[in-house]
Amino acid sequence: MNNDKVSLKDPELLRELSSLTIPQCEQLCREIRKKIIETVCRNGGHLSSNLGAVELTVALHRVFRSPADKFVWDVGHQVYTHKLLTGRYDDFSTLRKENGISGFCRPEESEHDAFISGHSSTSISAALGLAEAMRLSGDRHHAIAIIGDGAFTGGLAYEGLNNAGKSNDNLIIILNHNDMSISKNVGAFAKYLTSIRGNTAYLDAKKRIENILCKTPVVGEPIKNFITASKSALKSVLYHSTMFEDMGFVYLGPIDGHNIAELEEAFRAAKKLRRPVFVHVNTVKGKGFRPAEINPGAFHALPSSGYDRSNPNNEVTDSFSEVFGAKLCSLADKDDSICAVTAAMKYGTGLQHFAAKYGNRFYDVGIAEQHAVTFSAGLAKGGKLPVFAVYSSFLQRSYDQLMHDAAIDNTHIVLGIDRAGFVGEDGETHQGLYDVPMLLTVPNTTVYSPSTYKELEMCLERALYRTDGIAAVRYPKGTEHEDTFAEDTDSFLLTRNGSRKLAVSYGRIVHDLYGIDGCDVLKLVKIYPVEKEILSACMDYDEIYFFEEGSRSGGIGEKLLSLLYAEGYRGKYVITAVDGFVKQASAARCLEKYGLDPEGMRKIMALSEGMNVET
Amino acid sequence: MNNDKVSLKDPELLRELSSLTIPQCEQLCREIRKKIIETVCRNGGHLSSNLGAVELTVALHRVFRSPADKFVWDVGHQVYTHKLLTGRYDDFSTLRKENGISGFCRPEESEHDAFISGHSSTSISAALGLAEAMRLSGDRHHAIAIIGDGAFTGGLAYEGLNNAGKSNDNLIIILNHNDMSISKNVGAFAKYLTSIRGNTAYLDAKKRIENILCKTPVVGEPIKNFITASKSALKSVLYHSTMFEDMGFVYLGPIDGHNIAELEEAFRAAKKLRRPVFVHVNTVKGKGFRPAEINPGAFHALPSSGYDRSNPNNEVTDSFSEVFGAKLCSLADKDDSICAVTAAMKYGTGLQHFAAKYGNRFYDVGIAEQHAVTFSAGLAKGGKLPVFAVYSSFLQRSYDQLMHDAAIDNTHIVLGIDRAGFVGEDGETHQGLYDVPMLLTVPNTTVYSPSTYKELEMCLERALYRTDGIAAVRYPKGTEHEDTFAEDTDSFLLTRNGSRKLAVSYGRIVHDLYGIDGCDVLKLVKIYPVEKEILSACMDYDEIYFFEEGSRSGGIGEKLLSLLYAEGYRGKYVITAVDGFVKQASAARCLEKYGLDPEGMRKIMALSEGMNVET
Repeated sequence: MNNDKVSLKDPELLRELSSLTIPQCEQLCREIRKKIIETVCRNGGHLSSNLGAVELTVALHRVFRSPADKFVWDVGHQVYTHKLLTGRYDDFSTLRKENGISGFCRPEESEHDAFISGHSSTSISAALGLAEAMRLSGDRHHAIAIIGDGAFTGGLAYEGLNNAGKSNDNLIIILNHNDMSISKNVGAFAKYLTSIRGNTAYLDAKKRIENILCKTPVVGEPIKNFITASKSALKSVLYHSTMFEDMGFVYLGPIDGHNIAELEEAFRAAKKLRRPVFVHVNTVKGKGFRPAEINPGAFHALPSSGYDRSNPNNEVTDSFSEVFGAKLCSLADKDDSICAVTAAMKYGTGLQHFAAKYGNRFYDVGIAEQHAVTFSAGLAKGGKLPVFAVYSSFLQRSYDQLMHDAAIDNTHIVLGIDRAGFVGEDGETHQGLYDVPMLLTVPNTTVYSPSTYKELEMCLERALYRTDGIAAVRYPKGTEHEDTFAEDTDSFLLTRNGSRKLAVSYGRIVHDLYGIDGCDVLKLVKIYPVEKEILSACMDYDEIYFFEEGSRSGGIGEKLLSLLYAEGYRGKYVITAVDGFVKQASAARCLEKYGLDPEGMRKIMALSEGMNVET
Repeated sequence: MNNDKVSLKDPELLRELSSLTIPQCEQLCREIRKKIIETVCRNGGHLSSNLGAVELTVALHRVFRSPADKFVWDVGHQVYTHKLLTGRYDDFSTLRKENGISGFCRPEESEHDAFISGHSSTSISAALGLAEAMRLSGDRHHAIAIIGDGAFTGGLAYEGLNNAGKSNDNLIIILNHNDMSISKNVGAFAKYLTSIRGNTAYLDAKKRIENILCKTPVVGEPIKNFITASKSALKSVLYHSTMFEDMGFVYLGPIDGHNIAELEEAFRAAKKLRRPVFVHVNTVKGKGFRPAEINPGAFHALPSSGYDRSNPNNEVTDSFSEVFGAKLCSLADKDDSICAVTAAMKYGTGLQHFAAKYGNRFYDVGIAEQHAVTFSAGLAKGGKLPVFAVYSSFLQRSYDQLMHDAAIDNTHIVLGIDRAGFVGEDGETHQGLYDVPMLLTVPNTTVYSPSTYKELEMCLERALYRTDGIAAVRYPKGTEHEDTFAEDTDSFLLTRNGSRKLAVSYGRIVHDLYGIDGCDVLKLVKIYPVEKEILSACMDYDEIYFFEEGSRSGGIGEKLLSLLYAEGYRGKYVITAVDGFVKQASAARCLEKYGLDPEGMRKIMALSEGMNVET
């Protein structure tokens, strides 16, 4: 056995990986873990799930050849080891920094990232597309989807499975099973997976079959027939019957996800089969970092400020999310019709207190935003007051449900939209810049964008009790602005300084406008539909500067212009907003880049004389 | 046995239903079928699936009490019997007519329609919401989702199942299993259902258990334990193990869906259980109408013109859909990288020729629009040219996949968006009025809206070969305008008559503008992004009238105004478009109602002098 130390820094590492001994691999895994922990504790990022997937990733790269074989990582919370092994070791210190390595998969970053990731449950569909493309081109390589059990609560994963099982492709699905979504995983399917996970008798039967497969250099017809004879009595006894087999896959597992030899054996078997294979791998979230092993939920992700030893449970106490959660709790004290719904984001959306106090009417539906909205509409039709708390970017997955299941019938549901605006280090797949344009296309919808904690409380109450149809309250990640000069409101506030110039905005950036001399300021809090009074207030001005921490196309800036034009406004109108997608960088840096920081806004109002709308 | 004839017209029928004899029920079912066939052959509507659900519906209403028990019909293609039994017999002749009975569920139409329907796969989530609301209120009634196997290909159904199985609710899911989506059902799950369907040994085991249940007045702990002892060897032999049991349901079935006594027995058993139950009912699509039994796909729906005996296979040959399908075929002759994807709409989108000729690269993914887009993006990343043909309204379900899986990475996929514009008799859940505002919020997207067959061909070619990112080509239901005066283009066309007034539009209605005197006409075909040349062309006019067969909020009318304003345009600008949702009526009537017919447009251009934007 060659016991030379291997180095993660070795540029030839990927090519040499398959020739390493198991002890060398184990040493490599230790080195990888060290690097991940070091980097995430400094830069922030996803910790627990990445630590759980180290051996799995090393074993995959020993058996398959990226980029000829296509690795599709679901979400991307488990992709760091893959990045370290595929030429991104040197830049890894820039993880989640501006111009640095992304925390998710980015095909433009590396040919080894076969498909973009960030949102959940996409990998099976994407890998099936890649596998079909290869089949059509006569390419015999594999497409491999690596997906956690949390992502399996999303309907898209099921749609993918439903189509993949019947294909004739070199498609391999690796279930990285750690019993966790971001918090504890939920739902019947999760329970089902866990029932397989723990079944050792089952494991033994599986091992026998795997052994048969592994000892057969070319998988001949007899073995194929054996596997595909899905109706045979033999199968149901020896091979049991998992849901995955029912859906057309060969099922291999459960495999110990921290045993490289066992992982490799399974992957080699899967590779030989040349038909859709489902490999069930058991992993421990947070593996190798004690605080994360004990409390993987809290260490799902660390903030960009990194690991704070004085806050060992990585708790956030001062944030819009927390204020939202606390206010909802206090409203629920007095109103037992209030129900809270989350899609696997109990902590992220500040609903943990509600869940603890009102478990009976708290619903964590898993990563299932479509269901969350339709279920909420059902609750509402049954006389309840549902509040679905969700991140701005993930609400996109509920678009049809908002439109069809809530808006048409004018059903009253409340949305608590967290992470609205720039989200910082998560980058383009997570930006909260598109919810406003999206919601403006949904009739019977009202949108509030509070700029302070107090306004969030006021808006939530108004959304629940004094708004029809879909009532959305959106607020950013993090804390309120340190200087909140203006009075709180759940409608709008015009602050006059006798200027002919009016600066208009909403959300957290509005407070920076109060520091700019020589302009009146219009703060919008109920941003849509636009009130008549707002239009008449605007008509008095010669110049209007609209600042929007959101996408320009279809945003409030464009909407207000079309309404003002109808009223006869013909003055200057300058929209400063975001075009297209926005890469990772701190929220402060993003504001600066788009001219939405105090200095930028001041400049735009001073320098843009003689111009009209900048688009 | 009381053998008096019962009448469907009897206003007390619903109340008396449970006291009828089986022969009386059978007579009633014959009467219902007759009424449905008569009405649909005259008014158009969904035929095959409604005929398959007659006995099922009668049996449900004998066992459950609507509206105290909540009936949630998925899609609504099977809801006609329910409508006839719940007080809508007299108005049934107005089915799908303006101001008439909807072809889908509409809570505003009747308290017996517990939840809106039209799009697929929503019923389990909605029924679970209703069931939970009842549980929280201490109401012991049931929520019942009735869902076809076709709708089970949608991920939302799975998200609902995943959450429902673990609940403690009086929730019953009825699978109406006819082996069809709109065309033949697809996917591993469908195959799985069919494998259960045909298993008679299994049926016998089931029957035994049902009998136990039915003979027990109150379901005691022993039986509950028997059922929930899911790990026991007994279960796997006697009770087999279906996916649904794995997910936490009691599974009853398969039941003969045309045998009222058997149906009732199963429903009574389900009712007693007081926990989530899954009842598997086998039905025959088109039951009782020979042409539909023989060819249920062709008789899935009849057009509003009704049944044409000279066209016994109900074939459409002259339509935008057909032109799209034929053009895609001819392009695929020369380019083997073209792949076609449909979500259970092979015929509706005109892809049947492609499917027949290029089965190897044709994908019917089931009712799974999310998967369709992500899968297409996977094909594209693998070097293929995927074209996803989908109805405008159903594309809403792919919003997040368009944004996240295609747009961010600027992946080139083509969308063939059928049923764009007013769709007529299907009403508000199916209108193709929102795709443009939706797509305008997705960066890296180009939208074409051809107004003639020839333009559709030109646009499709341009979308495939001369457009980046997401390239959407949208076109209406039905045939091209009979008078197509203007030259075909895949860009835009300005027709000058020396006027100071400019009429601007896109899609089929643009041709009516050429008949209006005294205005220049700008036809947009590539509608987004708006070309610079279009802006400069518009700048020459004093008055611009924008006519949009689509939603105003976030549409091209608003977009063009904001761009023109930036260029310095300050003239009159009048947008005529659609606000909110639009109820069923012929497309011609809808155009008239919104001022988008020739007469309306002429009036708006003549009468609105001295006004500015009408919003």
